[in-house]
Amino acid sequence: MSSPLLYVGLDVGGTTMKAAVVDDLGKTFPSATLPTEASKGQEHGLNQMCATIRRAITAAGKTAKDIAAIGVATPGTMDIPAGIILDPPNLKPWQNVPVRDYISTTFGLPTAFQNDANAAAFGEYWVGAGRDVKSMVMFTLGTGIGGGVILHDKVLEGQHSHGAEVGHMKIDLGKTRQCGCGRWGCLEAFASATAIVKRAHEAVADVSGKSILKDLLNTTDEELPAKVVFQAADRGDEIARKVVDETAFCLAVGAMNMMHIVDPDMVVFAGGMIAAGEPFLNQIKHYIRELAFPVPAERTIVRYAALGTDAGFIGAAACARELVGKR
Amino acid sequence: MSSPLLYVGLDVGGTTMKAAVVDDLGKTFPSATLPTEASKGQEHGLNQMCATIRRAITAAGKTAKDIAAIGVATPGTMDIPAGIILDPPNLKPWQNVPVRDYISTTFGLPTAFQNDANAAAFGEYWVGAGRDVKSMVMFTLGTGIGGGVILHDKVLEGQHSHGAEVGHMKIDLGKTRQCGCGRWGCLEAFASATAIVKRAHEAVADVSGKSILKDLLNTTDEELPAKVVFQAADRGDEIARKVVDETAFCLAVGAMNMMHIVDPDMVVFAGGMIAAGEPFLNQIKHYIRELAFPVPAERTIVRYAALGTDAGFIGAAACARELVGKR
Repeated sequence: MSSPLLYVGLDVGGTTMKAAVVDDLGKTFPSATLPTEASKGQEHGLNQMCATIRRAITAAGKTAKDIAAIGVATPGTMDIPAGIILDPPNLKPWQNVPVRDYISTTFGLPTAFQNDANAAAFGEYWVGAGRDVKSMVMFTLGTGIGGGVILHDKVLEGQHSHGAEVGHMKIDLGKTRQCGCGRWGCLEAFASATAIVKRAHEAVADVSGKSILKDLLNTTDEELPAKVVFQAADRGDEIARKVVDETAFCLAVGAMNMMHIVDPDMVVFAGGMIAAGEPFLNQIKHYIRELAFPVPAERTIVRYAALGTDAGFIGAAACARELVGKR
Repeated sequence: MSSPLLYVGLDVGGTTMKAAVVDDLGKTFPSATLPTEASKGQEHGLNQMCATIRRAITAAGKTAKDIAAIGVATPGTMDIPAGIILDPPNLKPWQNVPVRDYISTTFGLPTAFQNDANAAAFGEYWVGAGRDVKSMVMFTLGTGIGGGVILHDKVLEGQHSHGAEVGHMKIDLGKTRQCGCGRWGCLEAFASATAIVKRAHEAVADVSGKSILKDLLNTTDEELPAKVVFQAADRGDEIARKVVDETAFCLAVGAMNMMHIVDPDMVVFAGGMIAAGEPFLNQIKHYIRELAFPVPAERTIVRYAALGTDAGFIGAAACARELVGKR
């Protein structure tokens, strides 16, 4: 009797990278983490990737011979079919890094390559929030808004590796909010964690008297205190409530647009911001019901992601699994 | 030697329905047209569909025995997998009409059922503007804005038959433009033929002096004189030019959003409004290059549809062809 197939999933982030062995049912072994240290150059980065993969294999009590395939997820920009990171804003100064071939050659194993947000969505689709559906759209809410679209077991990569850049759908024609990407009116400019904090600072700037939100913003030492805005809202601060409410509305606009374009079984929200909990999700759902066509409004399942920060490497492993399945 | 497979494609519209025999290469035989007469009820409508199909077969010099499959495209709302028109705003008072099964039973032939805008996009993908690409997004610009998304030979129907409702993506947060659907800020409310005419009327209402646009709008007897706005723009009317320019910008926003979500090989514009010709397309392209991410902005092909009003029945035939291929 042959033992079940095992994969390694590696998720490369701007600060750290994380890998783990994942079995054919999506069960994960203990993970390994190393710093990305992009500034040390891409040679170093590729070595770190291989080292993280090796540590993950060791942490699982396995050897490379036990592994059927490897999956690697990285931030963009990228050429997914070519397996290359092109010119990634979060991994400077890397350029044209042949990630897939390097890792495949090093380990002598089939290697899949995917965008990190796509991979996280694929992980949730495989064994997380979307495990029981056939199509799913995911919004990952962090400093930016990433996204992934899964249609019948396939990641929507797009023809130029730009599929599911849902944070950069334009939801406003006015020049009111500029996005980190330089464009105006992107969803991300209205509803990311960065955007919430910016809105909150703008809102309290006009407040002369007492304000829970103002106090919390002034005393926190968090770098991106989106959490503090939600806390102030929970404690009844009206300004914070308004900021949170506007954010929920904008996310509902993003969800509705995806429901009128892709029309998935399920919309999933992921990322640091979902720590805000069920009340925030319920606000988003409320606006989705108000905005969308009746049938998708009623039938599309809307929920939070289930895998946390493991979604990336689990999804990378899911891509590795696809690769072996396809051979 | 067996003769090539033949299909009948039927495109049901609010006013008329049109059918033709189409061969396996997309070549069409002479078409047949009958009035839809929705007000006479759905029994009558189903009979008209069958009559139009019969006439098309006769017009091709064939008999039903020569036909491999039938494809029917209708306006929504609908349940595509069930083959049923549900509650179509343009075919009142029809409700829950089992189109596919009725036609399939009547002719004893495999019958495909599809949304009309999806079918038109599939027709263009098969033998029209998109014949050489692998993925395509189409915007059909008429009284409303319809759409179709084709990904690797498949129509993106969506989980609730609401896929590719691109006219109802929200591109503005303000309550500036209300859509025919009742929602605010839909692409359709900014950039359909109806929207152009509305904008033009608004714009000339403020003009006291001479205006080519005003004169043309006042003297035309066209029901929806979008054409007149483009004519005035061609003749140098500044107000008309501004209306046309704003329309091109909004369509570029719609295209860009699809390029950042679906990231297709090609974006196609279709429908009556493309009579405006190349200058209008060039304006749209200009704004797409300005708005979209560099790679899709440079590489995505943007063009007008090639099949005119035949796209619907050709696409319906393409759906019939898929059906036989799948068996």
